[in-house]
Amino acid sequence: MRMRHKPWADDYLAENSDIVIIDPSQYKGKWHSVFGNDNPLHIEVGTGKGQFISGMALKHPDVNYIGIELFKSVIVTAVDKVKQTGAPNVKLLNINANDLSEVFAEGEIERVYLNFSDPWPKKRHEKRRLTNHAFIKKYERVLGGKGAIHFKTDNRGLFEYSLTSFSEYGLVLTFVSLDLHQSDFEGNVMTEYEEKFAAKGQPIYRVEAEWRT
Amino acid sequence: MRMRHKPWADDYLAENSDIVIIDPSQYKGKWHSVFGNDNPLHIEVGTGKGQFISGMALKHPDVNYIGIELFKSVIVTAVDKVKQTGAPNVKLLNINANDLSEVFAEGEIERVYLNFSDPWPKKRHEKRRLTNHAFIKKYERVLGGKGAIHFKTDNRGLFEYSLTSFSEYGLVLTFVSLDLHQSDFEGNVMTEYEEKFAAKGQPIYRVEAEWRT
Ligand SMILES: C[S@@+](CC[C@H](N)C(=O)[O-])C[C@H]1O[C@@H](n2cnc3c(N)ncnc32)[C@H](O)[C@@H]1O
Ligand SMILES: C[S@@+](CC[C@H](N)C(=O)[O-])C[C@H]1O[C@@H](n2cnc3c(N)ncnc32)[C@H](O)[C@@H]1O
Repeated sequence: MRMRHKPWADDYLAENSDIVIIDPSQYKGKWHSVFGNDNPLHIEVGTGKGQFISGMALKHPDVNYIGIELFKSVIVTAVDKVKQTGAPNVKLLNINANDLSEVFAEGEIERVYLNFSDPWPKKRHEKRRLTNHAFIKKYERVLGGKGAIHFKTDNRGLFEYSLTSFSEYGLVLTFVSLDLHQSDFEGNVMTEYEEKFAAKGQPIYRVEAEWRT
Repeated sequence: MRMRHKPWADDYLAENSDIVIIDPSQYKGKWHSVFGNDNPLHIEVGTGKGQFISGMALKHPDVNYIGIELFKSVIVTAVDKVKQTGAPNVKLLNINANDLSEVFAEGEIERVYLNFSDPWPKKRHEKRRLTNHAFIKKYERVLGGKGAIHFKTDNRGLFEYSLTSFSEYGLVLTFVSLDLHQSDFEGNVMTEYEEKFAAKGQPIYRVEAEWRT
C-alpha cells in the first residue's frame, strides 16, 4: 500500500511547509496562531492520504483540523489533497502519535479522530493498537480530560477490542453503529480505506467515546 | 410464535409448582432456601421456551438459575425443558420483569441474562426495551449495584442501542462480540432464537456489561 523509496518526499514536504508544519513543537499551546482564529481543534491520528481530513475541513469551516501521519511517503499524497481543496483550516504533521504531547498543550485539542487504524490482530501486538489504554492516555492529555474520540473501522476484531478498551478506560460510548452506510447517520466523510472496504460490501463500524467530567 | 389459548396452561403450571414457583414474592430474600444451598443466583429475563436456562443449569451445577417469562403459553414449554434435564438448580417464574424487586431482595442476584429480547425498533417504544435505563435500574437493585448483565441478540439496532444505554448508565463493557459464532468464545449455550437466526447465517452479538464498585 504505502510506497517506499520516495527520495523527493523530503523536498516536497519542505516546499509545502504552509500545509505540512515543520518542527511543530514550536507551536505547542499556540496552534490558534497558526490558523489565525480560536476555532476548536480536531486532529486525525493516522491520516493516510488525507481524504477524510480535507473533506471534513471543507464541510466544517469553523473547525481547525490537523492530520497526523507517520510516513512521509504517504503524507505527500495528503498534501496534494489538501492543496486541491484549498481549505485554509487544515494542516498536516509528519509525526508519530506517540509524540502528541510534545506538539500539543494539555487541553489544546477538542476531538481525536481515528480512522481504519492498523488492526494489529495478534495479542502480542496489542501495544501497537491506537485504541489501547496507553494511547487513550496520550489523547486524554491533549484533550485535557474532556472531548471525545471518534473511531471508524472495517475490522471487527479491532472494533470489539476498542469498545471494551474505551469503556474500561472510563469513557462513555455515546454513539455506536455496526453498519454505518446502512444507518441514518448524516454527514459521513469517507476515508480512502472506507471507500475500498465499503465497495467490497463490508460493514463499517463507528463509535464515539466521550470523557465525562 | 407464542401460542395463545392454552386453557390447560394454568393447570399445567400448578401441577409443576416444584419448577414454576407459585407466589414467588414469599421467597424474597430467601431464594437460597428454595435451592437448599448458598450458590450464586443468576436470572434470565425473557426466558421463552427455556433452552438457554436449562442448558446453563446443566453446564454449571454450582450456580442457581431462575428463568423469568411473562407468558404462560410460552413458559409451559420451558417447564418441559427443565423437566427433561432433571437439573435441580433451575426454577421458573411466570412474572413481569417490571416486578423483579417484589420477588428478589436487594443484592440477592449476581447476574442478569438477557437473550434476544424483543427489539421494539420504533423510537416511541424505547420504554419497552429491556435494556433501557429504567430496566437497568431495576436490575441494579436486585444485583445490589454489582455483578453484570450478559446480553445476546441478532438485532443490530437493539444491540447498538444497548451498548450506548449500558455505557451511558455507567456500566463498563468488559466483553463485546459482533459475531459470536465466529469468535473463540467458549461455553456458549444457544437459545431457541439464536439457533434460528444462526441457521440463517445472521451474526449473533454479545456483550457483558459490569457494575464497577
Ligand atoms: C490503515 S491506514 C488508514 C489511513 C486512513 N485513515 C484511511 O482511513 O484511509 C493507517 C495509517 O495510520 C498511520 N499510522 C500508524 N501508526 C501511526 C502512528 N503511531 N502515528 C501516526 N500515524 C500512524 C499509518 O502510517 C497509515 O497511513
Ligand atoms: C424474543 S423472545 C426470546 C426468547 C429466548 N430468550 C430466546 O432467546 O430464544 C423474548 C421473550 O421475552 C419475554 N418477555 C418480554 N418482555 C418481558 C417482561 N417484561 N417480563 C418477562 N418476560 C418478558 C417474551 O414473552 C418472550 O418470550
